[in-house]
Parts: sequence; structure tokens; C-alpha cells
Amino acid sequence: MRGYVPGEQPRGGRFIKLNTNENPYPPSPRVVRAVTRAAGEDLRLYPSPCADELRDKAAEVYGTRAEQVLVGNGSDDLLAICLRACVGQGGEVAFSVPTYFVYRTLVEIVGGRCTEIADPGGGRVADALVESKAPIKLICTPGSPYGEPVAVEAIRRVAEASSGMVVVDEAYGDFAGRSALGILDEYSNVVVVRSLSKSFSLAGARVGLVFASSPVVRELIKVKDSYNVSRLSSAAGVAALEDLDWMRANVERVVATRERVTGVLRERGWTVRDSAANFFWLDCGDLGGRAVYVILRDQRILVRWFDEPGLRGGVRVSVGSDADMNRFLEALGEP
Amino acid sequence: MRGYVPGEQPRGGRFIKLNTNENPYPPSPRVVRAVTRAAGEDLRLYPSPCADELRDKAAEVYGTRAEQVLVGNGSDDLLAICLRACVGQGGEVAFSVPTYFVYRTLVEIVGGRCTEIADPGGGRVADALVESKAPIKLICTPGSPYGEPVAVEAIRRVAEASSGMVVVDEAYGDFAGRSALGILDEYSNVVVVRSLSKSFSLAGARVGLVFASSPVVRELIKVKDSYNVSRLSSAAGVAALEDLDWMRANVERVVATRERVTGVLRERGWTVRDSAANFFWLDCGDLGGRAVYVILRDQRILVRWFDEPGLRGGVRVSVGSDADMNRFLEALGEP
Repeated sequence: MRGYVPGEQPRGGRFIKLNTNENPYPPSPRVVRAVTRAAGEDLRLYPSPCADELRDKAAEVYGTRAEQVLVGNGSDDLLAICLRACVGQGGEVAFSVPTYFVYRTLVEIVGGRCTEIADPGGGRVADALVESKAPIKLICTPGSPYGEPVAVEAIRRVAEASSGMVVVDEAYGDFAGRSALGILDEYSNVVVVRSLSKSFSLAGARVGLVFASSPVVRELIKVKDSYNVSRLSSAAGVAALEDLDWMRANVERVVATRERVTGVLRERGWTVRDSAANFFWLDCGDLGGRAVYVILRDQRILVRWFDEPGLRGGVRVSVGSDADMNRFLEALGEP
Repeated sequence: MRGYVPGEQPRGGRFIKLNTNENPYPPSPRVVRAVTRAAGEDLRLYPSPCADELRDKAAEVYGTRAEQVLVGNGSDDLLAICLRACVGQGGEVAFSVPTYFVYRTLVEIVGGRCTEIADPGGGRVADALVESKAPIKLICTPGSPYGEPVAVEAIRRVAEASSGMVVVDEAYGDFAGRSALGILDEYSNVVVVRSLSKSFSLAGARVGLVFASSPVVRELIKVKDSYNVSRLSSAAGVAALEDLDWMRANVERVVATRERVTGVLRERGWTVRDSAANFFWLDCGDLGGRAVYVILRDQRILVRWFDEPGLRGGVRVSVGSDADMNRFLEALGEP
């Protein structure tokens, strides 16, 4: 197998990184203090197997019971756990495409097979996804690389029609301001995955959260690593969740910058998709995505080009700080 | 499936924890400083997918090339990665018993089946393990729960006779002062797994290291999570490896305490196995292991009792500080 290739993380050199959807603003100052405390003598001790302190805090913040929460080493860990729990050799996993391509790799790792269904767009889900008998369905909302959110009503339709697990990946949920968390109590097969990487500026700390019914969480715990979240990451997560205002202020700034930059691009004649996330899709027209990627890279700006059918004509651009986005606008020029 | 149940991590309350083989001494002061630095603004960025800085440092310290190193979120992550890479549905995994029981859970998770072979002891390996055709064999040295090391020559015999992967789990290797790292260049199928949890006092940071041939490492990378080691854990690992003297001094203290305590126990008439690790096996005779576990627990001392055939008659005792071990000796009394 090929394995998933994540976006470039240049080592040294001064790049403006608009390629992996990181938050341009730092995490809450509370995080530094909490991590420093956690780095003391107690680091000799194993962490709580289920990161209890963070689990309790997440339950409090998101209005669930602690038994409905599972903490992971980033949301990739949690997606892998869901697949491990549900997919046997040759087992089917259904999702719309284009999407977060790590799904393919994760499915391949557990020996499953992907049923890829064309995304109808417009916040809807394809009938084929609703009707699929796959024991697990993945819905990324807002989805990558377009940033379009799926309506909660559409997720409800999938959950209603499915006997298996419906995993709603809300890694970018805070930017969209909508969530399937509200339907958790109605559907015991819905699993919501959230990440602290983007909106909470904690990509480097690896903290993801699952919310589901407690029987589902109990099953997921069986297939996770015994101590999957370090004391350091757990402390970072608790501190971040204690400072929601910090996160919300950064989300607002990112959204404002996104709207400003996509507005400028459209005025210049570029085609940009509407996005509800911290990135947007730039259609590169006749130039093609790879050429734009190279032009920008030569000016030390990294955006994401996907060598995938249907996506080669554009690039995904993460929303950086206003200064970085001005550099991007300058480097990109006219279509 | 049942899932693995790790040793108790009491939340609050004052327990002397001699149940999960943690180091009684804190990590190097360099760790706190490094983690504090890593907890700053850059935490908004993803970590290097292969934790390059730690990978380079580990290669330097252990005398390999960086391409021969894979960093994991604790050694459990790395054991799971090895199994994912080698074991398909129904695939065989061979190991000696008794051993670290998480092996069973990890094998079950990948849909494999365990071939458990009785450990002949005395630093040897069973002929059945040498001759087995299993595509992956696991050797824990020193092994849990007895703490007996396997001779490097015996590992060589297994590697020589095996076409598949031979995983040597050296989580407690620094206490034994011997390692299979020296035979890596001779056998491209040997994979050595090390942990910073025990000797480096970093159980809470989740840092494990794999050393293998570079083609094997390349395959393992394909089935790991994209960003499996946080910036915080990576920084902790680098700082710990930069202070080997600190680790060695703590290892010496733990070994000295182990020898003193097992000597006292034997003088009192207890049967204690020789150990090369930071724990020892106490045979509890007619009393049985569970009774001793309960007696100690009532005095707020936790040791590990395994509800497993062949192990119910004793307990595994981690070596704590001298003060904690004196409390243990007092609480335990005569056989």
C-alpha cells in the first residue's frame, strides 16, 4: 500500500504555511501554563487511560455525560479507532468524495474497502450514501477540500436509514457554527469526532474528542491503545477548553479574513468556492492547480495541491493571518 | 472482545503505586524546560510526521541511521503498528507466555490469532518459537511479569530461523543492560522496540522508539497515524535522551533498591524470582497472589495481581523509592 502523505511540514526555511489548515493564532496562554505544570515530576506516571480530567471537561463544555466522551491522540487516532471497531477484513466503509483522503488509508489499514460516492453538494447527502448498507459511513462536515458543510437534517437522514455507525467528522466544526452534537441523544449510531487542532490552535498537541452513546464509547475504548493520550496533551486540552472565548475570538478573526480574501479574489476574477471552514478552494482555471502551487511555492508560500482526479484543477488554501494572506494575494496575482 | 485492562491509576487518594512499573524518580529537569518551550506559539502547527528531531537524536544516541528509527506514541503504539503491518485476518502471532498481556489484545484488534508458547526460562527461547512459521514473533526482554531477560544469542537463533518479523520488546532494557540493538545490522527482520516510560521516567509523555532496517521502517510508517507524536512528547523525548546520565543514575538506584528489597524478602522466607527489570515477582505461596494484593491494597499499596492461569499464585511488584519499598516491606510482613 501507498500510505497517506500529509501536507509538507518544511523543516527550517521561512515558508508561509497555507497547506495544512493550521490556525494562524497561538493557543490560549492557559495552555502553556497547564503544560508546564504537567511536565513536572508526575510525568513519570502513566496518564489516566481515558484522560479522565479532559473527558470530564469535554463533557461539561459540550453538554454530554463523561461516559459519552472518548479522547484521542488527535482525531486521526479516533477515526482509526472507529474503523477498527466496526470494519473487518473486506468490510465496507462508505463516504462522499472528494473528502479528507486519509480516510482511504485508514480503511486500507484495517483491510476494509471504500465505497466512494460523489458528493451532491449544497449541504445534501447522496441518496446512495443514505441507502448504503455499509456498516460504517463517514461524513466530513465542513468537508475538505471544499469547506462545504452538510446540513444536520441530511445527517439525520443518514442516521435514520443506517443500522451501522455514522461518523460525523467535525474537525472544522467550530468554523461552521453547526454541529451534529444536538442529535446524539436521538441516534445511538451517531459518532461525532471533533479536533482541537484547528479552532483551538493545538495541532501540535494531538487532541481529538469523540462524542457518542455510552455503549458505543465502551466498545471503542476496547480497541484504543491503553494510554493513548499523554499527560501533556491532556493538560493542553483541558486548558484550551477552559478558554472558549480565546478559541471563539480566533475563529471569528479567521472567518473575517477568509471572507475578505475570497472577496478580493472574486473581484480579481478568480473562482472561489463558498467555504464554512478555515480554508477555501481556489479554482485555477486553465492554469491548473499544480502550476499555481509551484508559482506560490517559488515565493515560499505553501498551499495544498491534490494529485487526485477531479481536484487537479485547483488548490486548497488555508486561511492564515491577514499579513500572510496579503502576501498570498500579492504572490498569486491575477487569474 | 474484552479489551486490555491496564493497572489501576487511582484518581486522588494517597496510594503507593507499585503496580505499573513506573520509575519512582522524576524525569530530567531538562524535560520540563524543553516541554515548556514546545508549549508556546508553535503548538498551533502540526508536528513533524516522523518527529524528525527526536528521530535524529535517537539515531545519534543508539548508533543507527535516522531512517532506521520510528517514533511512537508510547511503545504500545509501535507494537500495534508492527502488528498492523504484518498481520492479516487470521494471521498468526507467536510469543512466549507468560508475557505482557497487552499483546493478546493488540493481536485480537488486528484480527490475528495468538500462538502462545511456554517460556522455558533461563534466558533461552522455546524451540517451538524458533521453528514457528508465524509471520511475526514477539519477544519481551526482560519479560513481564518475571523480569527475566532473554539472551541475545537466543534472539539471534530466532531471527536466523524466521522469515518474518522478530519484534524484541525492550521496554525494560535499560535495567537489564543488554540489548538486541547490536544485531540489527545482521538481521533485517529484527525490530527492537524501546520505551522512554520506564528508565527515562516518561510514562506520562508517551514516547516509544523502534529501531529496524530502513526498508522495514518505511513499511511501518505507512500504517502509523499521520502525526502520531505530539510536539510536546517529541520535545520531552529529545530532552530526556540528551541527559543519559540522569537516566543511568536512576536506573542504578532502582536496581540497588530491587536487590536490597528482594534480599530482605528472601531472608524473611519469601520466594522471589531473580529480575533484571524494575519490578520483581513475589511468589505468595499458600496465601495466593490475590490475598497479598488485597492485604497491601488495604494499606494503600498497589501491586499487580494477574487473574491468569499460572500467575494467580503471586504478584508483580514494581520497584519504588527506598521509602516506599520500606513501607511495602512493613505492610507485607512474613510469608
